[in-house]
Amino acid sequence: MDLDRRDLLLAAASTALLSSGIAHAAPDRPLGYAIVGLGMYGLGVIIPQFANCAHSRLAAVVSGDPAKARRVAAEHGLPESAIYSYETFDRIRDNPDVDIVYVCLPNSMHAEYVIRAARAGKHVMCEKPMAVSAAECVRMIAACKAANRKLMIGYRCHFEPFNLEAMRLARSGAAGRIRYVRSEHGFIQGDPSKWRLRRALSGGGSLMDMGIYALQAARYMTGEEPVAVQALESTDRTDPRFHEVEDQIDWQLLFPSGAVAGCKSMYSANQNHIIAVGDKGRIELEPATRYDGNHLWTGRDGREHETTSPPPGPGRTQFAGQLDHLAECIASGREPIVSGEEGLRDLRIIEAIYRSAREGRRIEL
Amino acid sequence: MDLDRRDLLLAAASTALLSSGIAHAAPDRPLGYAIVGLGMYGLGVIIPQFANCAHSRLAAVVSGDPAKARRVAAEHGLPESAIYSYETFDRIRDNPDVDIVYVCLPNSMHAEYVIRAARAGKHVMCEKPMAVSAAECVRMIAACKAANRKLMIGYRCHFEPFNLEAMRLARSGAAGRIRYVRSEHGFIQGDPSKWRLRRALSGGGSLMDMGIYALQAARYMTGEEPVAVQALESTDRTDPRFHEVEDQIDWQLLFPSGAVAGCKSMYSANQNHIIAVGDKGRIELEPATRYDGNHLWTGRDGREHETTSPPPGPGRTQFAGQLDHLAECIASGREPIVSGEEGLRDLRIIEAIYRSAREGRRIEL
Repeated sequence: MDLDRRDLLLAAASTALLSSGIAHAAPDRPLGYAIVGLGMYGLGVIIPQFANCAHSRLAAVVSGDPAKARRVAAEHGLPESAIYSYETFDRIRDNPDVDIVYVCLPNSMHAEYVIRAARAGKHVMCEKPMAVSAAECVRMIAACKAANRKLMIGYRCHFEPFNLEAMRLARSGAAGRIRYVRSEHGFIQGDPSKWRLRRALSGGGSLMDMGIYALQAARYMTGEEPVAVQALESTDRTDPRFHEVEDQIDWQLLFPSGAVAGCKSMYSANQNHIIAVGDKGRIELEPATRYDGNHLWTGRDGREHETTSPPPGPGRTQFAGQLDHLAECIASGREPIVSGEEGLRDLRIIEAIYRSAREGRRIEL
Repeated sequence: MDLDRRDLLLAAASTALLSSGIAHAAPDRPLGYAIVGLGMYGLGVIIPQFANCAHSRLAAVVSGDPAKARRVAAEHGLPESAIYSYETFDRIRDNPDVDIVYVCLPNSMHAEYVIRAARAGKHVMCEKPMAVSAAECVRMIAACKAANRKLMIGYRCHFEPFNLEAMRLARSGAAGRIRYVRSEHGFIQGDPSKWRLRRALSGGGSLMDMGIYALQAARYMTGEEPVAVQALESTDRTDPRFHEVEDQIDWQLLFPSGAVAGCKSMYSANQNHIIAVGDKGRIELEPATRYDGNHLWTGRDGREHETTSPPPGPGRTQFAGQLDHLAECIASGREPIVSGEEGLRDLRIIEAIYRSAREGRRIEL
């Protein structure tokens, strides 16, 4: 990557962060979301969050399970015409109640449904990781651009008050010059039949699922884009959970300022942690990126001061902030702070992490 | 490294750890130490610790500064005959008050003074890192063996109650199967004229000085020997402190069980931390390896339980435990738990870390 491009990305990242607290023009009515995929996240996490939104509402559901779809629609007062299967999904173009399609499907299906949504004339929110390859991300961005629709990635931490405050502290020099960031994200995967453990659906293991939080943290705590990556994987392939995807993967990122990030994800231990260490102190989050209950500390050598009440984020919850942000961007014509380009940046790095682990060597970005 | 050799090392490491709490035969009189090097560590840290020892006493000083040597000798009631310069050092063979020579010199002088001490018929304690190369370590071990003298490395953490308890917890399965260890050790080097920043004296930068604690932690918390290493260095060579040695260095170690360690040392930020994460919980030390004031936590996901009173170590302080251990080993004929071989193991890994960082690739051990 040449310096000009790097500077541009740095500037873009800064702008995104700084603008995250700025109120956008609100839409004159709540925008309608169609939730694609009624799994644990779409149904269990996202749909209940519309109750916390100011500018967003549930307008349709898309599911392969007609009974579940009918039940959810009934619970939320949606008409029969707001229920789609994967086969009838493209007809969503004719539903003026739906402004945005939120793709909560397994990773390998993101590209197809984002592109179909854009072609149906809808704006798109896509869960992270954006796709299973950078090439898919490029096609998704192009499809949304061609349709003149917004594309945003579900990076909820950019709307989470403790993470936002940690970013602000890092940018303000509260810890001095950031020398390194460390982040580990993992949990114990129990059920070997989960789609996240099937490569054809997930595109990869703990890195795709949890590691992307550590990667994001490295980037948003430094405010820089990495120039080199080095990775090491450790997976017990005899473990039935890990026949197809990696368990542990560790990677180091080198940033232009000389800062280094040491990141890790795994499916065989619990950990959820971010620390940024500068030459004047540190900023630490643990748990760092949970749905709630995150903690933030600053200090010179340890957890000397806890920030219990960070400035509120842009929404009543991180999820509501995320959902409303896209609605506001559509109303105001702005780009989302976590756009398709942001998702693509992560996938390019993720591909380099996997390649480095496979080849046992440092990869320049 | 073949599997048999690895098993042997593992067994040796386990035995060392398990035996660390066992009382050894005590010598019938306190053994006499000659302190070589009256710098910050030898004079400021070690000499005051004889007051805490049961089996060790100060018997001589070796210094290039005659006035300082006379002052220290007077303060501790040593006769004129207990004062040596580097030129007269070899005459220490004729001093029956001196049983052990403790080498507290800059790293590049360790080999010479350990070998001269062994040739003078003295047992030897040598500060860490044992030397500036594995080749030197081999010669040092050979010299002590030829003289039939004990050689121990000043790995004080093996006598520090919080670290000992953390090792015991890790071995006992308190955190389940250890999946990874992470350790960072660093502080802000202020004075560019320090010997630790001169390669000819130090042999390397933060890795040689502080990184060796992280490396030790990775080994003693897993109880395993690494089979591969991958490292990345980040140093601002325009910084006058870092014209000759590295600032930040990150490295990953892969262990035979599949556990991974992510380690780091630096001279541009403060950090002193060890965490071992298993599939049932975690064991965390912060600060981890200070002279005092270390803290130990266990928990499932966080710092849920603090161990404020670990079982006492083998000495009144970690330093006294270390000093007396060698005296006891001499009396009982046992090998020190942190012998020259232990120092050599670290130097071999350190050389691989530097090589990996230089070549940008994984090095098999």
